[in-house]
Amino acid sequence: MAGKVAERRAALRDNLIIIAEKRIASDGLSALRARDLASDAGCALGAIYNVFGDLTDIVLAVNARTFHRLGADVAAALADAPQDPIEQLVVMAQAYHQFAAANLHSWRALFDVERAPGEAAPDWYLHEMGQLFAYISDPLAVVFPNRDPQELALLTRALFSSVHGIVLLGLDGASAGVPSDDIDKMIALILRQFTSNP
Amino acid sequence: MAGKVAERRAALRDNLIIIAEKRIASDGLSALRARDLASDAGCALGAIYNVFGDLTDIVLAVNARTFHRLGADVAAALADAPQDPIEQLVVMAQAYHQFAAANLHSWRALFDVERAPGEAAPDWYLHEMGQLFAYISDPLAVVFPNRDPQELALLTRALFSSVHGIVLLGLDGASAGVPSDDIDKMIALILRQFTSNP
Repeated sequence: MAGKVAERRAALRDNLIIIAEKRIASDGLSALRARDLASDAGCALGAIYNVFGDLTDIVLAVNARTFHRLGADVAAALADAPQDPIEQLVVMAQAYHQFAAANLHSWRALFDVERAPGEAAPDWYLHEMGQLFAYISDPLAVVFPNRDPQELALLTRALFSSVHGIVLLGLDGASAGVPSDDIDKMIALILRQFTSNP
Repeated sequence: MAGKVAERRAALRDNLIIIAEKRIASDGLSALRARDLASDAGCALGAIYNVFGDLTDIVLAVNARTFHRLGADVAAALADAPQDPIEQLVVMAQAYHQFAAANLHSWRALFDVERAPGEAAPDWYLHEMGQLFAYISDPLAVVFPNRDPQELALLTRALFSSVHGIVLLGLDGASAGVPSDDIDKMIALILRQFTSNP
């Protein structure tokens, strides 16, 4: 019987993640409400808190799936990219842009998830970020062979943040939106210029 | 008598902007509620909508003031900067970082204000962004004398977005926070590398 209960809890957990993923993808993180999830799942509101600590825990589980999909897209772009490390960076950054544009709400949830001030990001989150950063630091190490690992880590983080900023402001029609074509142009401009004098 | 009414409306308008500015600065945009503003101002909830179309209009008025303060800080940093255009870019970008860190909620409200999908940013907003961009494009034009105005505009927007991304992710402890010293290092790294081969 204990096995059945555990099984049901696991099924509800998986179901709630899928439901929350759909809600975030269509309406955005800020519209996510526990009562809507309970209603979609056909369970009592309290049942959610039997399997998740709070709403943020569900969002983190959804974000884990989004990180995996993003990583898969970046890896697929890399597989088709030329051997040239600078072109690899450009192709991956443009894949990042495409993913963000096609999954706007889910992508924004990766960065908009709220955490208590001072509370560190969970290990799995930092691990997922680390995986993404490895895609960038590998070609960067080829372009900048004389930088030590610490400098390379800083370069990697700076470049990722730069591409993220270009995509974020570019996709945000409310502040200073630019056509999607120009986002890819800006990405290529920054990356080529950045790597032109190693 | 009409003059008195107009005067009172103007006074309430100014007062609501100051009150909203304080609320946003201390609690962030997402916690802003019309009923709290009415309570702080000692007016009826409906009175707010006699002087502003909606809450977003108040936020835009607050953002205008934040843009002006940011511009003043960047201008002050520029006044003390060396004549070298690359150093000017570095000093201004680091002033941007300092402003964002010291005015985190107000700065985030500049980018987080919600607008109906497809609705363009108001002209004054684009004008304020344009003013900030002029601070960047002037030294960039010295570094890249052979780029045409269109390329220069794209370079300017790409560099601003890059610095914005570095500051945004750097100050966000929830995702991939880095120590403040590293933010300035990354800014200098990106800007110097970017301008090293014009």
